[in-house]
Order: sequence, then C-alpha cells, then structure tokens
Amino acid sequence: MKLARFNEGRIGLVLGNEVADLTKVLEVDTAEWPSMGLLRVIANIEKYQPVIEEALKNAPRYSLDDIKLVTPIPWPNKVIAFPVNYHDHGQEMQADYRATHQGFFLKPNSSLSGAGEPVVLPSVNNREVHHECELGIVIGKGGKDIPAENWKDHIFGYACLLDMVVRGREERVARKAYDTFCPVGPWITTADEVTDPCNLEMKLWVNGELRQHANTRDLVLDIPGMIEMASAVMTLYPGDIIATGTPAGVGQVKAGDIIRIAIDDLGEMNIPVIQGEGGHTFIFEKDYTPNIIKQK
Amino acid sequence: MKLARFNEGRIGLVLGNEVADLTKVLEVDTAEWPSMGLLRVIANIEKYQPVIEEALKNAPRYSLDDIKLVTPIPWPNKVIAFPVNYHDHGQEMQADYRATHQGFFLKPNSSLSGAGEPVVLPSVNNREVHHECELGIVIGKGGKDIPAENWKDHIFGYACLLDMVVRGREERVARKAYDTFCPVGPWITTADEVTDPCNLEMKLWVNGELRQHANTRDLVLDIPGMIEMASAVMTLYPGDIIATGTPAGVGQVKAGDIIRIAIDDLGEMNIPVIQGEGGHTFIFEKDYTPNIIKQK
Repeated sequence: MKLARFNEGRIGLVLGNEVADLTKVLEVDTAEWPSMGLLRVIANIEKYQPVIEEALKNAPRYSLDDIKLVTPIPWPNKVIAFPVNYHDHGQEMQADYRATHQGFFLKPNSSLSGAGEPVVLPSVNNREVHHECELGIVIGKGGKDIPAENWKDHIFGYACLLDMVVRGREERVARKAYDTFCPVGPWITTADEVTDPCNLEMKLWVNGELRQHANTRDLVLDIPGMIEMASAVMTLYPGDIIATGTPAGVGQVKAGDIIRIAIDDLGEMNIPVIQGEGGHTFIFEKDYTPNIIKQK
Repeated sequence: MKLARFNEGRIGLVLGNEVADLTKVLEVDTAEWPSMGLLRVIANIEKYQPVIEEALKNAPRYSLDDIKLVTPIPWPNKVIAFPVNYHDHGQEMQADYRATHQGFFLKPNSSLSGAGEPVVLPSVNNREVHHECELGIVIGKGGKDIPAENWKDHIFGYACLLDMVVRGREERVARKAYDTFCPVGPWITTADEVTDPCNLEMKLWVNGELRQHANTRDLVLDIPGMIEMASAVMTLYPGDIIATGTPAGVGQVKAGDIIRIAIDDLGEMNIPVIQGEGGHTFIFEKDYTPNIIKQK
C-alpha cells in the first residue's frame, strides 16, 4: 500500500496517478488537533486492512495533480536521525566518527513537511542551508530492546526524507530543526511493497543536476542495527520516523531551486525552495563557510 | 492552578493534599491513544477555565497519597532542552560554549515520566548516569518568531524537571534519551501562580544530601531569550516543554537512591532510582569517566 495524507489531513491510498480517499472508513477526523489519524491507522493496521480493501471499491478518487500531499505523520512520538551513516559523507564532512559510535539525534515534529510543500529558508544570511537525501523508516509495531534480527517485525513502511540543515558548528539539533526542514513523502510505502530496503538506490537532484546518488547497502549502521540501537535507548511507538543518514554530495540550496529526491520503490518528491521572512537568531549570526571535501 | 495527570491518565486540580478529579468536565478520554487530553486542555484553556471553576464544587477528591502522579504531557510536539545554561555547570563540565552560542537540543517524548514513577537505569555498566536539576517550562499559546519581550504571552506554566544523562562523548541526545530520563512534575503550576520565574530557587538532593542549588536568575540565556531563540527556529505549540538547563553539582545516581527536586512555587518530586534490565547498546560499551571540576 501507498498511504498518503493530503489536503486538510485526509488519508488515501495511492493507485497509479490517483488517490482513493479513505478518510471516512479509516475513522480519521480532519478537524482533530493534533492530527493523529494516520498514526492511529498504523497502530491498528490489522483492524483497518480488510476495511481498506472493501472500501476501495466505492472510494472517491482524485488525480494526484488535483490534491496537495502533506506530511504523512505530522505528530509522531519522535523523529530519530542517525548522523554520519555513510562513509563517503563522513569523509566529505571530515567527521572523525560514524553513527556506529555516536548514536542518534532527534528532529522536532514541527520540522516535518510534505511533498506538496516548499522548504522555507530562514533568515540566516551568513550561513548555507544544505540538502541531505535520506531513506525514511516508519515504525509499525513499537517495542523496546528489539534484537537486530527482528527488525522486519517493527517496520511499517518507508518514504523519501530530506534532512535539511544550516551548516555551522552549533548544536546539530538546532541547525536541523527549522520548520519545513524535514520533508517526508510523497507517501508511506508499506514494507511489503519494498523489494529490499537494504538495497535501494536513492538520488537527489537540484535543478536537474544530480548531487547525491547512493545505495542503502552502503549504510554504516544498517537498518537492523538502527532499530536495535534506537530501541535499546527508547521505546519505539507506531509512527516513529527514522532518518537513516545521508551519503556524500550534500550542498547548498537557494531560493528558487527545486530539490528532487527519488528512491527505488518509494516514488519521488519535487520540493521547491523559497525564502522565508522569519528564522533570524543570534546563534547563527557568526559567519561559517563549510569546508566540504569533494569525492573523487 | 496546579494541573496534575494521574493514574491511567486522569486530569485533576491539586488543592492542598488533594486532587479534584476533572477528567470528565475536561472531556479527557483516558482510553485515548496517544493520550492528548491535557495537551488539548492547555490549547483550549479559555474554554475550560469557567468549566473548571464550576466543576470544582462537585468534583470527586482523592488524597495525593492514594493516587499515582504520571507525566502531565506524555506526547507533546517536542521537548526542547538548553545545554550548558548556567556558567557554573559550564565550568564543572569544562565546556567551552554556552547555550547562547549553541542553541538547543531535543529529548524524545518517550523519555518523559512523572512524579510517581522511578528513574530506570539502563544496562550501561561502564558509564555513570547523572542527575540534572532543571526548571521546566510548558508552552501555552504557540507561535513562531516570538520577540523576547512577549515571552509571558506564551507560557502556560512551570514544573520541576530532571534531565537524566549517561555521561560520555557520544551524541548528547542519545545519552539523554532513555525512557524515564525526563521526569516532569509533580504537576504543572500555571504561570499566574509563579511569583517570578526568573527568580526561583531550585534544589536537588540525593538521599537527603544537597547536590544542586541555584536560582533561575543565574541562567545564561534567560527565559525570554529561550522563548525567542526556540521560536526563531521552530513553531512552538501548546504543551511544548522546555528544559532550561542545569546548574553545577551534577553527579552520579545509583539503584536505590532517591532523587528529590524542589523548586519555589512548583512543589517537589521524590524519584526513586532503580536498575532496569534493558538498555544495553554497543555505543556505550567504551569506558568513560567524567572529569567534573568541583566548584569552590
């Protein structure tokens, strides 16, 4: 299944170029605040699976061109992110550690956005804002202290994810926390539709120029290892999102750019970059020019 | 008002040694998952304020001794935390930066616990787990790019907060993310009942021995500055929690210890420390002994 959230929080199943609106049968109240509908669907997927199949026969369908895709899970328990999890990105950043030694950090729910929304650049004039192309994992069955070999039991699905960042030396979390700095989508593809998540090609272009190209088989800490490590520390809940780390090729984006991210089996997102008016803070006033070593 | 969450997610008003059960009038469904009841009350406090006053006349009352206090807001949009935000703590940690230069990090919702729950030590045998005594802020009215001078418009209330941490050199977020590593409570005291949040004495004892003692007037980045900086980066939502940073005196806790934290106007928590069975992860296998410089 490809589960999408769209317009004012409706939930639908993507079928080709259309989305079948399942908001009603999935008992999602679009007026609910915070919007927890798809998260509860994920937590109770066994109950909803037969409902979905039956409802598809009569569900209203819209063209993907006529709807706005928004972030699938806007208010998860947490968004976990693994730093420096491809060796080539570690080299370009001159980082002397890898995710296998560092653990993870977190991104705030408020940074989540969707395929139909822009990345809004904050007013941090002395700084570059960089794209980071990542595989996103969505947790299905929660748990604590999950052994690596049981990883498949706990993954609901996958999505493309952009981990946007203000370059600098300050606390990584703060530099990665701006609103719209975590586009996820275009929808969640359930695990059964992903041939091999540990062998997915992913690519990122800026204005049509290929900037990042990697395969998830090159992850330093692999997907089973990430599930094990994250759940050793934290109870995982349905709907938790894991940003698995970015490969080499990170670079600056500017207002007017279009970021395109595509991952095998998961679809693609085309995200415009626009300049916002807010976001100025004294912590980013100091100049900083990243010294990124280009790969041969 | 002192708003407490207790037992299986009931909401009540603390009056002396009793809690008046307002679960029903506040339209909180204790079976709801995730439990968003008190968060929605905070977001709609103007609607509920008159309801609360009226309901108090007939609300069932229980002794605080007969209930279990749990964490007030178990699933906020985010838990923001400011590192090295008292100069004396910066000195003892030999940190060459302060929150005014670093920004903030995040703690996961899954780390939140309450006044009636223990801190559970993970199986990280080569590492010390330390207490950090902090003032917790609960956001009321959300917002983005909030000027420092408007800080009072956005704070719903305050609580005692413990920011527990595994000492080491790994990513700070991972070391602070364990379940039960963020006790908040004993309840939320609304801002109108706090004489001056920028002049609150706070103390922490371990087994009756005073370990930390500070005043919020000694914060490096003060409360208005934290609201301004956090909201420059992230949209704040009702129920967001801010851990404001810890003063000097951090130190190890062991199974069997009782951590007591008390802050002027906000009450106190007595949190037992117990040893858990889970939590082992390879990232904390390396030995690490913190070299903390004692204050004169």
